[in-house]
Parts: sequence; C-alpha cells; structure tokens
Amino acid sequence: MDTQALVRQFKELQQRMGVYHYAMGIINYDGETAAPRQSAQVRGEVMGALSLISYELFINPQVEALLDALEEQRGSLDRQTARELHLLRKEYMETTCIPKEEFAAYVQLCSDAGSIWREAREKSDYPLFMPYLQQLVDTSKRFAAYCKPGMQPYNVMLDKYEEGVTTAYLDGYFATLRHELVPLIQAIAERPQPDAPFLQGVFPADSQRRLAHRLMALLHVDPQRCTLGETAHPFTSSFTKWDTRITTRYEEGDLLSSLYSVIHEAGHGLYEMGIDDALQRGPLASGSSMGMHESQSRLYENMIGRGRAFQDLLLPRLKDEYPAAFNQADGQALYRAVNRVIPGLIRTEADELTYSMHIMVRYELERALFDGSLAVKDLPDAWNARYREYLGVAVPGDAQGVLQDIHWSGGMFGYFPSYSIGSAYAAQIYAAMNRQIDVEGSIAAGNISAINAWLGDNIHRHGMMYPPAQLLEMACGQPFDVTFYTDYLKNKYTALYGL
Amino acid sequence: MDTQALVRQFKELQQRMGVYHYAMGIINYDGETAAPRQSAQVRGEVMGALSLISYELFINPQVEALLDALEEQRGSLDRQTARELHLLRKEYMETTCIPKEEFAAYVQLCSDAGSIWREAREKSDYPLFMPYLQQLVDTSKRFAAYCKPGMQPYNVMLDKYEEGVTTAYLDGYFATLRHELVPLIQAIAERPQPDAPFLQGVFPADSQRRLAHRLMALLHVDPQRCTLGETAHPFTSSFTKWDTRITTRYEEGDLLSSLYSVIHEAGHGLYEMGIDDALQRGPLASGSSMGMHESQSRLYENMIGRGRAFQDLLLPRLKDEYPAAFNQADGQALYRAVNRVIPGLIRTEADELTYSMHIMVRYELERALFDGSLAVKDLPDAWNARYREYLGVAVPGDAQGVLQDIHWSGGMFGYFPSYSIGSAYAAQIYAAMNRQIDVEGSIAAGNISAINAWLGDNIHRHGMMYPPAQLLEMACGQPFDVTFYTDYLKNKYTALYGL
Repeated sequence: MDTQALVRQFKELQQRMGVYHYAMGIINYDGETAAPRQSAQVRGEVMGALSLISYELFINPQVEALLDALEEQRGSLDRQTARELHLLRKEYMETTCIPKEEFAAYVQLCSDAGSIWREAREKSDYPLFMPYLQQLVDTSKRFAAYCKPGMQPYNVMLDKYEEGVTTAYLDGYFATLRHELVPLIQAIAERPQPDAPFLQGVFPADSQRRLAHRLMALLHVDPQRCTLGETAHPFTSSFTKWDTRITTRYEEGDLLSSLYSVIHEAGHGLYEMGIDDALQRGPLASGSSMGMHESQSRLYENMIGRGRAFQDLLLPRLKDEYPAAFNQADGQALYRAVNRVIPGLIRTEADELTYSMHIMVRYELERALFDGSLAVKDLPDAWNARYREYLGVAVPGDAQGVLQDIHWSGGMFGYFPSYSIGSAYAAQIYAAMNRQIDVEGSIAAGNISAINAWLGDNIHRHGMMYPPAQLLEMACGQPFDVTFYTDYLKNKYTALYGL
Repeated sequence: MDTQALVRQFKELQQRMGVYHYAMGIINYDGETAAPRQSAQVRGEVMGALSLISYELFINPQVEALLDALEEQRGSLDRQTARELHLLRKEYMETTCIPKEEFAAYVQLCSDAGSIWREAREKSDYPLFMPYLQQLVDTSKRFAAYCKPGMQPYNVMLDKYEEGVTTAYLDGYFATLRHELVPLIQAIAERPQPDAPFLQGVFPADSQRRLAHRLMALLHVDPQRCTLGETAHPFTSSFTKWDTRITTRYEEGDLLSSLYSVIHEAGHGLYEMGIDDALQRGPLASGSSMGMHESQSRLYENMIGRGRAFQDLLLPRLKDEYPAAFNQADGQALYRAVNRVIPGLIRTEADELTYSMHIMVRYELERALFDGSLAVKDLPDAWNARYREYLGVAVPGDAQGVLQDIHWSGGMFGYFPSYSIGSAYAAQIYAAMNRQIDVEGSIAAGNISAINAWLGDNIHRHGMMYPPAQLLEMACGQPFDVTFYTDYLKNKYTALYGL
C-alpha cells in the first residue's frame, strides 16, 4: 500500500480512538462534577465496557501491521505524522508488553489497594496498607522488566511520566535542591512571619465564585472555551482547545485556597487551549509531559500569581468583594501574605519554597524501594526521618505521613518527580520569557495576554510534538538547568524574609 | 439454537447498546449544562460518530436474524423478555423501513430547519421557515407511508409518541375539552384576579437554588440518586434509577417559574427513579409513553404542588427565605396566587386550565396539515383564529404565534397531544389514588412518601412493561376517561373564581 493510503488509515484510526477517548473523558468529568453519588457503579461498568472496546480497537493485528508498515516509511512522513507514529508505537508496546491477564489482575489490585488505602488513611494504619503496597511494588518491577528488560525498573517508570528522565538525572537535580534549599528553609524558620489580618475572615462561597470568574477573565481564559466547575479536588480536563474545564473548591475559611487553585488550573487550561489547531483531536493534542504541564500551572500560580506586580491587580478585586477585610491592606502586605513559608506535613498544602522538599522525600523513598535498599515495612520510619531532616517537622502519625497521597495506591511510582521538575522548568521558562518581554511590567499594566502569547508561541502551540527536554531547550535557548529554579527561590525568599 | 442461548445473545446486545446510549446521554447532558459554548462542533461530530456505531450495532443481518429467531419462540419467553423483543422489533422496523440515504437527508433537513426556525422566530418571519416546514411535512408523510402503508400518516406519527393513540381517539378527546373548558375560561376572564403582592419582589438566584433543594427534599427525591442542574430550558435526564438529573433556571423576577419547574421535573425524575431494578439498563427502563411521563410531572406540579394542602408546606419555607415578602401571606392567598388563570399566547407559560387549549390548537392544525385540508402557507391565519376562539387572545406576530415551539422544526409532528393527554391521565390517576389513600391529608401531614409509594407501586415500577392505556387501566381499575380531567378542572377553578 502507498504511504498516502497508510497515512489515511492511520488518521482514521486516530479519529475512532478519539471518539472513545472523548466519551470516556466526558463521562469521567461528569462523574466528578454533576453525577449523583449512587451513579458510581453503573458508570464504572460502562467505563469498563468502553475501555475494552477502545482497547480492542487499538490492540489488534491490523493496527500492529499498520504501525509497522508506516514505520518502514517513516522517512517519507511529515513531522506531525512521524511524531504521532512514535507516540502510538510507544503506547502500543507499553500496552502489549504486559500479558493481558496480568494486566487485568493489576487493574483489580489497584482498585482493591485504593479502597484499602482510604481505610488505612482514615485509621492511620500503615500495616493494613503494607501488603498491597508490597504487591504494587513487585508488580511494577515485573512489568518494567517485561517492557524494557535491560533498564532499571524505576527508570522505566520515570520515563513514562517524563520522557527521558532517569535516576542519574534526578539524583543530581535533587542534590542541588537539598544543598540550596534546606539551609534557606531552616533560616526562614527562625524569622518572624508577616502579619495578614485581612485573611482571617469568613469568605462566602458565592463571592469566591464571582472572584474566580474575575480571575479567569484577568488571565484571559476564554469563557467560550473554558468553564469552571466545583469538585473536592481541583483539576483540569481538556477535550479540545475549544472545550476545556477547570474546577476548584471554595473553603469559606481560606480565601487563598480557591484563589490560587483557580490560577493554577487556569495555567493548565491555557496550555491545552493554546495547542495548534492542526494537532487537535489527535494523539499530540496534550502537553509535552506531566512536568511541562505542571510548569505552566506553577508559572501562572507562583511566578505570576504570587509575584509582586500581580498583587496590585488582585487587591482592588479583593477590596470589591471584601471591603471591610481588605480596606487597610496594601500590595506589599498581600505579597508577603501569599508567600508565607510554613514547613508542614502535607504536600498539597505546601508553600512554593518547601514544595519540592515534599517531592524529594518521595523520590528518595521510591528510588530506594525499587533498588531494594529500603523494605516496604521500613517506609514510615524512613519517611518520618526525612521530614525531620528536610522540613524540620515531626510526623505525628502515618495518616499525615506516608499515607497522605493517593498515587502509590494506584501504582503510580515515578510520577511525583514531575511535580518538582515542573516548577524548575517554570523558573527557566520565566527567565527566558523575561529576556524577551518585560513580564512584571506587563502584569503591572494588566496585560496578561502578552505573557499568554509568549507561552503560546514557545510552549503551548507545540502540544506533544517534542519531548519536554527538547521543547524546553527550544523555548529557552539552552538545556535544562536547575539553577534557574534555585536562584529564583533564593532571590525571592531571601528578600521576603530579610535574610 | 436453543431459546436460552438466543435470550443470552439478546441481553448482551441490549447491554452493548446500553453502553452507547449511556455515553451519548451523558455527553448530551454535559453539553446542556457544563460544556463551554465553543465545544458544540466537536461534540456534534463525536455524537454523529457514536450514533453511527450504535446504528451499525443494531441494524445488521445478525441482529435481524436474532430478533426473528426469538419472535418464533415468543411463547417460551418470560414476560419481560417478550416485551423487550416487541419494543426492539418495533424500533428495528421503524428504523429500517426508511431508506438509509433518505433518512440521512432528513436528519440534515431537520438540522437546517432548526437553524432557520431560530432565525425566523427572531425575525418573526414565517415565510422564511415555510419552505422547510413544507418539506418536513412532505417527508414525514412519505416516511409514514413507507413504514405503515395502510395507515393514515398522522396516526403513524401519533402512535410513535403515544402507543395506540389515533385521530379518532383524539377528536373525541379534544371535542370534550373544547366543550367543557372554553366556556369556563371565558367565564373566568370576566372575574377579578386575586391579589398577590408577595410575588412582586426580586428573588435572588442563590435563595431560589436553596429553596429548590428544600423542595426536592420535601418531595423525597433522593439526593444520592438525583442532582439538580441549571439550563435555559428545564428538563430531566435519567440514565438509571441511581442516576437521574433534573434542571431548572432561576428568574429573579419570577419566583414561581423555577419553583414549579423543579416540582414538574421532580415528577419526571421520581418516575424514572421508581422503575424496577430488573428493568434497569434495558429497553424497558423508561416511562410507558410521553403522555404517561407527562402525567407524573403534571400530577406533582399541579395536583400536588398547586393543591391547597401543599401551600401550607410551601409557605413556611418561603417565609424562611423571604420573610419580608411573605410575612403577611397565608396559605389560601398563596393557593389563589399559584392558580391564577391568565389566557396567554405562549404555551410554556400557560396556567393549568388553559394549557390544553394551546395543545388543542396544535393538534387541530397538525391534523389538518396531514389530511390535506390546510396548506402550510395558511397555517398562521388558522393558528391566530384558533387562539382568538379558544383563548380570547390576539396574536401580534408569528414569533409569539406559530413560530414559538421548536417541535415542528425537528419534524416532531404528533408529539404535542401527549402533553395534554398526560394531564388527563394525571387527573384519573389522582382520583384512583384518592380512593385508596387520603392524598390531601398525606400532603397536609408532610407525608409525600405515601404518594410516592402509591405511584411507585401502580405506575413507576412497571417502566415500559405495558402500553400507556393498559397501564392506566391497571392503575385505575377502568379505562381512560377524559371526564376525570374536565371534572377536576371545573371543580377546582369554579371554586377558585367563585363561579
């Protein structure tokens, strides 16, 4: 068959797969937002049926032959098709390298482990969860060996979430963070905290909802293409650049929680909404990697949203909604308040500076679990020791310690590092953008669209056309360098705490 | 093949069809509620693809052979399977009797006619819509002749929405309504209207939303199985008895609009949520007919919600939310206010008494269009003459006249009568229920669950097991009789207006 005919078949396959992907995505979003509680069982069954149909549509001898035939003609494919082929072949191999029955057993294990993890966390009972974690680690190791026999299992897992990332890379990365940030965090712990009386009040959900929509408008998130939902845990779901959803939750005692979660999710949303039209509805219509996606959410949340200039945009809006509380506040006081550093136990509540320490703990422990130097039964002690060392906090129980995150119960080892790397990408991207446009000046002028346009051109539009390391280098003109991140944090927090 | 094996195949087919039905239902609901505006095009394309897959799953020689084989063994099928077979065979024939290309052209015609109808309504320009309406009538006639060559086309269409209903049946039905209700409406027009100063205020959406949830609780709509959404046009969408959604809209100047729309949709929701477990996820998991569904929504909305006893449940809740407005109001004043009769131009805003007159106009015109006694070009004059005769109102333009409803632009001829018949079913069902339990007494005691239980036993649980006429007779102990409806209306409104 000629290349053109093969490519046509390939695009038709993508289209068909896209239909199921879309349906499952919407059903999942609906389940998280609008569906009543008792809908869960039938939704689970329908999703199972759709997954199976979708699996059979992709994993079959005809598709395998098509992918192989195209691979032979790779030289005559256009760049987009070649990249699509690369990613779909990778997915095909990652799916088929595991025997089907073993994969089904693993899905069941994750489901059971999820329930048990919830129970264990409620009871702060690590031994209850321990045998499931052991099985998850063992299975993940075995699967990694099936798929890439010559590679260290943990590197196989890292690569799944962040193409090209290895322990060799991350060991150096985290060593730098440890060396630069741990002393800074310790020094800040000795300093007095800024006062923020304006954050003490009660902030009704209705007013926070209104504020959230005003923030989205300020960030130029197109309301014709992106809506705001409400869920217990904020997230972003994007179906196309014309159909993106972000969610938040409103805590009446904590104004900053929903405010910064909206900016964070808006960053994810803007990425998806900025991907080229030509990539829409195909396998490249997403962010380059988990870490690159996180770089955009963190850039908007922290570098823009927690920057000094942004506070002067935020404050008048806060004064509109809460005149009594914010009457006496000024931009500098707000800047100090939204950047308080308080080393704590819970990752999802961490401030910008201590966040990567939480990730470092998890990275070191995952790495040790997978190279065999740490036993699953010794995990809590190892966890607690590291929290004491890096963050200076004592873990009172496993619920607030090793049991706090859902990831491991779903077999997601190797995922956490992308959260930290995202912040580091963000710092480097921010610096590159700043060499070309006056970022703080644009924010001060309320001109966020200049920032959106730069990120759109340099990051967003490319979707998954390039692996993250290559995309970063294209955008920044130099390879990834962690010192942009450590310099950024040191400069910002040294000044904030007068060190 | 033995019966058991055939039945197993048949149930598997239902399950597979159910997966697509569910997916398309959720995507549609999401599109009406959560999706951003620009999502429409991709959603349309995905829905088209899913419809086609779903069509091909059902319409093929294997399924046809399966249905035929089962039909031969109908005698040995259980009652549920026999009814499922009847309905799926009916659907198979209704789908295949029309040549595929002609059906595709018709879908396109409906889509075009829908856009043109919107434009025509905005401009109040009937001639713009006229050629499309002509084509829709012609195509519907042709399709009816394909499917049931020996039958009057309009009867074919009526039967689609209300199994067993014919023009012979409806001519008598509407003749009675005309005879009994037109003089009553004229008499009321001469009487003074009750005062309702408490409805004059502004009622914020937030408080109406809270009230809507309290109403759902009062009606025992299980919040674990039914959620409340917001859309421009209220509707009910049910996926299973464990997953039902109702929607409303909040008009700040019109408290009664959302309040009664919530009760109306709750009636639809309770019907779906009351269907037997054994019927869930199969072709019988819905109301017996459009009319029977409407009987439940109207029974809750009008007979319960606009009944005298209910006002004493409603009033304290209104006083909670709006103490200033409702401070001086009493139950009798509220009863009179929610039952004001004001003959008007718009069907969806009609009160309980005049509602069926709006339907009668549409029935008479559809009937005449299809028997050839009325030309499409003469429709507006015929419409306006009837509004003058039955409702005493002058139609100022076609936007508020013949162009007001969406139905005809979608080829839905024969649908309107089910709206009126539903109200008539409701009156007869209400009377039957009243012979067995003290309905107003139960409401006065706040015991709505006694009513839900009676309707659950006699109507809801059966789903589509029986055609509407049979179900009504089973529930009421006698065949359908329109005089329950006319007596109910005459008694209620004669007393209310002191005639």
